[in-house]
Amino acid sequence: IQSRLPDVGTSIFSVMSKLAIDSGAINLSQGFPDFDCAPELIALVEKHLHSGKNQYAPMTGVPVLNERIAEKVNGLHGSNYRAESEVTVTAGGTQALFTAIAATIHPGDEVIIFEPAYDSYIPSIRLFGGVIRSVALTPPDYRIDWQHVRSLVTPRTRMILLNSPQNPSGTILTEEDMRQLTDITRDTNIVMLSDEVYEHLVYDGLQHQSMARFPELRERSFIVASFGKLFHTTGWKLGYCVAPAQLMSEFRKVHQFNVFSVNTPMQYAAADFLSDPQTYLQLSAFFQRKRDEFTRLMKETRFDLLPCKGSYFLSASYSRISGEPDTAFTQRLTKDFGVAAIPVSAFYAKGNDYGIVRFCFAKKQETLEKAVERLMNV
Amino acid sequence: IQSRLPDVGTSIFSVMSKLAIDSGAINLSQGFPDFDCAPELIALVEKHLHSGKNQYAPMTGVPVLNERIAEKVNGLHGSNYRAESEVTVTAGGTQALFTAIAATIHPGDEVIIFEPAYDSYIPSIRLFGGVIRSVALTPPDYRIDWQHVRSLVTPRTRMILLNSPQNPSGTILTEEDMRQLTDITRDTNIVMLSDEVYEHLVYDGLQHQSMARFPELRERSFIVASFGKLFHTTGWKLGYCVAPAQLMSEFRKVHQFNVFSVNTPMQYAAADFLSDPQTYLQLSAFFQRKRDEFTRLMKETRFDLLPCKGSYFLSASYSRISGEPDTAFTQRLTKDFGVAAIPVSAFYAKGNDYGIVRFCFAKKQETLEKAVERLMNV
Ligand SMILES: CSCCC(=O)C(=O)O
Ligand SMILES: CSCCC(=O)C(=O)O
Repeated sequence: IQSRLPDVGTSIFSVMSKLAIDSGAINLSQGFPDFDCAPELIALVEKHLHSGKNQYAPMTGVPVLNERIAEKVNGLHGSNYRAESEVTVTAGGTQALFTAIAATIHPGDEVIIFEPAYDSYIPSIRLFGGVIRSVALTPPDYRIDWQHVRSLVTPRTRMILLNSPQNPSGTILTEEDMRQLTDITRDTNIVMLSDEVYEHLVYDGLQHQSMARFPELRERSFIVASFGKLFHTTGWKLGYCVAPAQLMSEFRKVHQFNVFSVNTPMQYAAADFLSDPQTYLQLSAFFQRKRDEFTRLMKETRFDLLPCKGSYFLSASYSRISGEPDTAFTQRLTKDFGVAAIPVSAFYAKGNDYGIVRFCFAKKQETLEKAVERLMNV
Repeated sequence: IQSRLPDVGTSIFSVMSKLAIDSGAINLSQGFPDFDCAPELIALVEKHLHSGKNQYAPMTGVPVLNERIAEKVNGLHGSNYRAESEVTVTAGGTQALFTAIAATIHPGDEVIIFEPAYDSYIPSIRLFGGVIRSVALTPPDYRIDWQHVRSLVTPRTRMILLNSPQNPSGTILTEEDMRQLTDITRDTNIVMLSDEVYEHLVYDGLQHQSMARFPELRERSFIVASFGKLFHTTGWKLGYCVAPAQLMSEFRKVHQFNVFSVNTPMQYAAADFLSDPQTYLQLSAFFQRKRDEFTRLMKETRFDLLPCKGSYFLSASYSRISGEPDTAFTQRLTKDFGVAAIPVSAFYAKGNDYGIVRFCFAKKQETLEKAVERLMNV
């Protein structure tokens, strides 16, 4: 058969995690915690497994979870999403992104994205015939030149895809960014796809700028979030999308024929667990300590860390160590030094190489210590 | 926004299940058991939840499950699928179908489908620009006229989508059908998408004709299966696809950007549970007893059942009761008589109405008895 995605290989996250396993390396590449979720959450799943909650959930989610999600989002951002028509539970953040793109993009539609970008964005858009208009942001500050963004907008622009906190750079959108975005999209039909899976991992007292906080943006936005990141359960594949009813109705048309519905007992458990907001409100402090600890330890190495305001990730320049391409460097780091990381060039379609690698610090203290011990030899 | 699926409403299964709940009706509409899975299976999920299996599974599935799936399929059908490159675990059968279509269909490609058809097929194909060439099969025997199928094949035919055992008709493909299909596809580039989610629900000693049994068909087939149907856990959203490596490699390119990976603890539990083939080998006898029991009970009503050789479903003509359209009849049946069923016209794009409704008999004996008590009043 003729490939629908001829340029696509295996996701860098799969490649590096597999190399980590095969090399017996400490895996700081793919973004997931190496510690477990709360035992209370597991107990809740068990409760629902035992109470006969093992058949299809409603296509849009189990109603109590949709309620809890609406309460959470509305409580945090002063929005007014309706659980029944404006919230859909998904099989993780990635499926929500894919489905929102499928529901929106017609062949020839233009989509503005920002690189470095999570590796699903570009192929998902291309699969539906979308045309990529990319804004390449550059280290160390990855600042957005809004004049440049404005110059890319045409009558064919159908979507702007943003990710804050940003993977891999750890940057976050500011209020000024939100104002610019509001200006640019005003009086257009542009839809926002906002990847906010790291919404509750924001550091130094900074404020996550959700599209939900800004009425003019909210009304044109699909917002995507992830319970994997809230609960330390990336393997449960549970996330959600919120959007105004008209957008959500299109989202659901695709969702129902893609996955139809999502894991029932885990949805009920998530609903119960969400009823205590501490679940997510304490996350920023928890992960900030990890960021700070990894930063402190890394001072003993020849890597130079870049700032990180949110997400699971710290980037590091290795210019004091080697001039190799970042893909070669991460291979060597994994195989010879026993620490897997992600080459940041993998987040640029053109492979822009700034000599930077991404480490995931969502790991146990002892994992971070062992990894840095090894990185000291590099 | 402009809809990508303008003709699509809410899936009939959601509509009727919701109406059943709202009307307090017995739900024989959507296909799922109202009894629970084996307690041993729940215990296995608990084991893996407690052993730290809560982060991302590999994109293609946890290796032990891929191995068990390959063993199962190869053992049953004499095929030789390789677990690593030819098996992918999916978030249910529907996601596997959607992903196989996404990976194969280019705009303008023609797809031959058979109606009555599961309601995801047509919109999924259209979403990727595929052109439907439909063969409408008719009750009571839904026989395939292979001459007609042959006449629909053109150089643009990219895929033939088949479903056996068939939902909703309960028919199954015969060896003669497989010979015809082999002849028609020989020396073409046609890909088969074979929806075999009811593979282990085949009655009267008949043999399920999997594409995997026929080397000439196997080499061009995506085969889709469902653990929901094997384990009575439709709400866990666990299924798989097997296909030759070249097709599977295209499937995975899409899969990794759609759901990326599937529920980790439940994959491990499924692998453990599959190691005893009795899990699935006893299913046909188990569900045949339910079919026979429902058939016996229904004799007391004015419905006339059609034959059923496989699947969860029995169809019934209500010509002795009413001449209403089947959608009106199922509404009335649900609201006034307290039994929800699916109007078979929903499985035809043009809404062909043969005065037939579909009942799901995958229910407890007492549910079947109560439902028939009500149906006796109709
Ligand atoms: C879905 S696998 C990737 C996890 C992740 O978000 C990352 O490592 O960037
Ligand atoms: C995925 S919901 C539909 C279940 C089913 O296969 C049916 O009722 O036909």
